[in-house]
Amino acid sequence: MESASLLKDDERIDQLYSQDVQIIQSPTCFAFSLDAVLLADFVRSNHRHKLRTVDLCAGNGAIGLFLHKKLGGTFAEVELQPRIADMARRSVELNRLTDRYRVLNMDIADVFTAVPKDSADVVLCNPPYFPVSAKSQKNPNHYLAIARHEIATNLATVTAQMSGLLKMNGHGYLVHRPDRLTEILTTMQAHRLVPKRLRFIHPKPGRDANMLLLEVIKDGKPGGLKVVPPLTVSDEDGHYLPAVQEMLYGQS
Amino acid sequence: MESASLLKDDERIDQLYSQDVQIIQSPTCFAFSLDAVLLADFVRSNHRHKLRTVDLCAGNGAIGLFLHKKLGGTFAEVELQPRIADMARRSVELNRLTDRYRVLNMDIADVFTAVPKDSADVVLCNPPYFPVSAKSQKNPNHYLAIARHEIATNLATVTAQMSGLLKMNGHGYLVHRPDRLTEILTTMQAHRLVPKRLRFIHPKPGRDANMLLLEVIKDGKPGGLKVVPPLTVSDEDGHYLPAVQEMLYGQS
Repeated sequence: MESASLLKDDERIDQLYSQDVQIIQSPTCFAFSLDAVLLADFVRSNHRHKLRTVDLCAGNGAIGLFLHKKLGGTFAEVELQPRIADMARRSVELNRLTDRYRVLNMDIADVFTAVPKDSADVVLCNPPYFPVSAKSQKNPNHYLAIARHEIATNLATVTAQMSGLLKMNGHGYLVHRPDRLTEILTTMQAHRLVPKRLRFIHPKPGRDANMLLLEVIKDGKPGGLKVVPPLTVSDEDGHYLPAVQEMLYGQS
Repeated sequence: MESASLLKDDERIDQLYSQDVQIIQSPTCFAFSLDAVLLADFVRSNHRHKLRTVDLCAGNGAIGLFLHKKLGGTFAEVELQPRIADMARRSVELNRLTDRYRVLNMDIADVFTAVPKDSADVVLCNPPYFPVSAKSQKNPNHYLAIARHEIATNLATVTAQMSGLLKMNGHGYLVHRPDRLTEILTTMQAHRLVPKRLRFIHPKPGRDANMLLLEVIKDGKPGGLKVVPPLTVSDEDGHYLPAVQEMLYGQS
């Protein structure tokens, strides 16, 4: 299929050169951000042919697709919004990965109607970060509001579904905000997900972290969390530092 | 009093040049480590004359004494082991700070017999880090075993006493190990202590964190944790990096 015929409306194709993969994006409804690239980089490789990975809140499928070489086996991409799930489906076609990827257009609350409990080796999630309150400013764009704010799901649900999907000793990966770290760790622990590896992302040298990457193991031995070296994204002038350039463009 | 006459047995006097303070140390029963210097550096200054600070698991009183200029008011140094509490008392004399510091030789479990509940503005704690199990290797030196292993107290007790001592909106400061982060944050939260600021200490560039510094606020607004820029202690060759040199020796 011609690439152009896969595109609708204001869509474009962006490439993640480091992973040799193309992603259909739309500025008005969904485009992956650095968060997705960082989470995919944080995932441990596993080339088992029978590996089963589920991406919750998959958006346009970017994180799962970034992992097409690092993880073996099959992927289920779960996305609530029909327009965005459709972009994910077309990105899978564009990359000729339909034999390994399926896109499930559903609420993650209903995921067990499509994916059995205790069946996944890996669960990924880049959820909406911001709690919703009467006062909170939400994005006026409905697509982006759902992707960024806890309107359609929340941390407790994401965690419960991650735990329910994972096999014993399966690995969960989450990208989220450091200001909610206490809530994240307590919620994970309450759902049999033991935090095992944590990386903080700082936007520039000397700035507080604005993102965290967390690996959990279902029914893992308690304790033993590793806080690995942090990543600083840009220099003072906003230029990506070499580690991030490599994630985006591959080794130069 | 002459400095020499304050010393017993194998004791010596060490100086923290950056804070212009002298600490009585003993290699066989207690000497402060970098942990104490880092925790004191992490504490926010507050020069109120009526400030009340309590140091739990105070050891030879090093952390409290390091803060004699950064914090105003009075200090209670709570230490279980008589021999070590006695060193703390003599360090207070040595620095002519008896009007501001008192040393309480008691189990922190009994602290409310000497310090009223809800009375402290600041509580500091550098507790024993290592859980005790039937298998765990403990230091054969009894003094050091109690200082490093949860023999005489544990995280739950430390947290309960910190919470009990602090006024509403009082600040608690803890130095501990990252492998217990989940337990630390959940225990703090369960005791009305809201984690507000977290700093990780990495021993060298590219190594996992081996220490954390945490600031909590009693009955603080939930969430809003800041993960501030990490500190790396040494370069690849084990030489202290400039930020640590400054903590030890002052600005050069």
